[in-house]
Amino acid sequence: MSEHGALQDLVILDLTRVLAGPFCTMMLSDMGAQVIKIEVPGTGDDTRTYPPFRKNKDGKQESLYYANINRNKKSLTLNLKSEEGKDIFRRLVKKADIVTENYRPGVMDKLGLGYEELKKINPRLIYGSVSGFGNTGPYRLRPGYDILSQAMGGLMSITGAVGGPPTRAGSAMGDILGGLHLAIGLLTAVHARTLTGQGQRVDISLMDSVIAATENTAIKYLESGVIPPRMGNRYAAVSPYDAFQVKDGKIIIAAGNQRLYEKLCNDVLHRPDMIDDPRFTDMEGRLKNQDDIQAVIEDTLGELTMDEAVELILSKGIPAGPIYDVSQILDDPQVKAREMFIPMEHPTLGSITVNGCAVKLEDTKPSVRTPAPALGEHSEEILSSYLGLSPEEVAQLREKSVL
Amino acid sequence: MSEHGALQDLVILDLTRVLAGPFCTMMLSDMGAQVIKIEVPGTGDDTRTYPPFRKNKDGKQESLYYANINRNKKSLTLNLKSEEGKDIFRRLVKKADIVTENYRPGVMDKLGLGYEELKKINPRLIYGSVSGFGNTGPYRLRPGYDILSQAMGGLMSITGAVGGPPTRAGSAMGDILGGLHLAIGLLTAVHARTLTGQGQRVDISLMDSVIAATENTAIKYLESGVIPPRMGNRYAAVSPYDAFQVKDGKIIIAAGNQRLYEKLCNDVLHRPDMIDDPRFTDMEGRLKNQDDIQAVIEDTLGELTMDEAVELILSKGIPAGPIYDVSQILDDPQVKAREMFIPMEHPTLGSITVNGCAVKLEDTKPSVRTPAPALGEHSEEILSSYLGLSPEEVAQLREKSVL
Repeated sequence: MSEHGALQDLVILDLTRVLAGPFCTMMLSDMGAQVIKIEVPGTGDDTRTYPPFRKNKDGKQESLYYANINRNKKSLTLNLKSEEGKDIFRRLVKKADIVTENYRPGVMDKLGLGYEELKKINPRLIYGSVSGFGNTGPYRLRPGYDILSQAMGGLMSITGAVGGPPTRAGSAMGDILGGLHLAIGLLTAVHARTLTGQGQRVDISLMDSVIAATENTAIKYLESGVIPPRMGNRYAAVSPYDAFQVKDGKIIIAAGNQRLYEKLCNDVLHRPDMIDDPRFTDMEGRLKNQDDIQAVIEDTLGELTMDEAVELILSKGIPAGPIYDVSQILDDPQVKAREMFIPMEHPTLGSITVNGCAVKLEDTKPSVRTPAPALGEHSEEILSSYLGLSPEEVAQLREKSVL
Repeated sequence: MSEHGALQDLVILDLTRVLAGPFCTMMLSDMGAQVIKIEVPGTGDDTRTYPPFRKNKDGKQESLYYANINRNKKSLTLNLKSEEGKDIFRRLVKKADIVTENYRPGVMDKLGLGYEELKKINPRLIYGSVSGFGNTGPYRLRPGYDILSQAMGGLMSITGAVGGPPTRAGSAMGDILGGLHLAIGLLTAVHARTLTGQGQRVDISLMDSVIAATENTAIKYLESGVIPPRMGNRYAAVSPYDAFQVKDGKIIIAAGNQRLYEKLCNDVLHRPDMIDDPRFTDMEGRLKNQDDIQAVIEDTLGELTMDEAVELILSKGIPAGPIYDVSQILDDPQVKAREMFIPMEHPTLGSITVNGCAVKLEDTKPSVRTPAPALGEHSEEILSSYLGLSPEEVAQLREKSVL
């Protein structure tokens, strides 16, 4: 296998902006796909102006957000509102495997570049879209944002403190889930194409993606009629299985069955009496009286550091771990061993760090190969290599603001 | 294309239990893969004893959790600790495309069924594992659970109320993210196999998967040195972009730029004076004084229902949406249009509802075809059709507790 990875034969024309789509194509490019990021001339992806910033070698503020999510991609500027821009796009579609976009449904159709048009040019084309609500249904034209998907997909309703307000996951989880579902859809369609010879459309909705990630929540509600409450870090059916305060932070202890509870009492808390204590003899009792158990755990372990407490508990065979902030993650030996953050050189930003790929393929390893592109950096290269345009033709297109 | 979908030619031997792995193979089976769920004789997947339960036609408590996550799969019981069980597994591996497992690293090796052994039997085999920390690194042998991945992957540290404790996402998000990453890895390896003719190992860690889902969090910290605080539903760089109380619940308003803020003031709040109010003239001011903006929004909209408020705000071109609980999601017309919940008949549970698939492939539609299997329901069928065993041979294996 070449150095470029599992997807090296796939050419993706990537019209997506901001996070959900670009996160998907970041993963696919890490695994070797040739991602041609098509950006609006002059401005490019919105995230070129998103923080965090660093003063670059030209003394200008430049986005590390863009630099992170768009490594390994090439940038082609193209004005899709101009006839010549559309023409170039259509000619590229003939050579591409995949088009991705995250416009509101209908925008590509209005440009004359919707899937129905593009598949006439290239029946093998796979067309992936990700939008707030998907390409069908009454809300299809509503604006979609991460936070709306977390709100309308139900994640917020089950996240947060007991008695507290609905709370979003602290990252753009709706966008990430949308991007992951899009990647699965595209790769599945690539496989289907080996069976049928035909491409197809993949239609991902952020709201659908969040609903899927709430797993059995609706099934529980449908059976019980009880709307699931927010529970902080506790669970409805297991205890002690929660966050506990120690000297310098919080740790998780997950002693979710009788055997682990007894081990915890005997070997960690040195309180064998708690096994037969009528409050705690079964799971039902432990759930009802979890504040009492928490008090004993925190009294016993409160003088230990997170590291000491976790080491002690793990050594007794009970699942435990620290609650990390981001600085602790970056220092963690497991995270380093898994290469979840990658240092790289960027031509204008200098030494930067980008996220590693969480999909570990042992033979065709994902890799971070090239820095995120300057706006239009590869326009000439792409138009020459894919369409055979001469430097003069490219210069003319630039003059006409097509690029 | 046949009725079975995009992945109909792929045979998956699925040893995974509980959620992360079974969620992955649920998606793949929805898209047509032939998933043979291999379960421990007598007990099966742990989730067969997980709530919610319903009294089934035999008068016994039966799990709807299992029924949801394992539709479309077939169940083969197999004792992998017995030599005959191992032999049957190895013979099935010859006919399979994919093996999935979520044992702690090393368990399959000890059984003599690790990837290095299996690839000798079938070099085209793709071997996917998902575990708490992955197959490499110092924590590889630690027990891994959803909540540990949310804690150690950093999601908890950025989720929760301002000034409040670190908080988990309310679903098993670490498991879901692990399952999604596993699906991407498997499908990528299937594609790589078309190029190389060889299978490979895919190694997914829940902790890695959560770290990836925190997207730019670490990049921001590395540049600023500031550990990102918990912000409830607010964002660091945009306002008003938050949850707001109305008559019967909370809604999201996402007016994250100058144009949308002005529209909000003019067309929704009827307070054009707030545009030039020195507290709110730019984003920096709006971020600093967001409590004041919130008070005006909640005063103005507080008598409207969620539906009325959202409709009003959307009609003015400003992104907004309700914060739904699960009952509202189930009633929502968009969710119905997207078929995110599917009614089906189950032979012992009767009429049940299961989650729909969020990956919408337009030609090879994902589908829910068959109910989750009874334990070992397909043992005879599978051993007959894949290995040519006779009913008598199957009966003998059953007698010896191999099945």
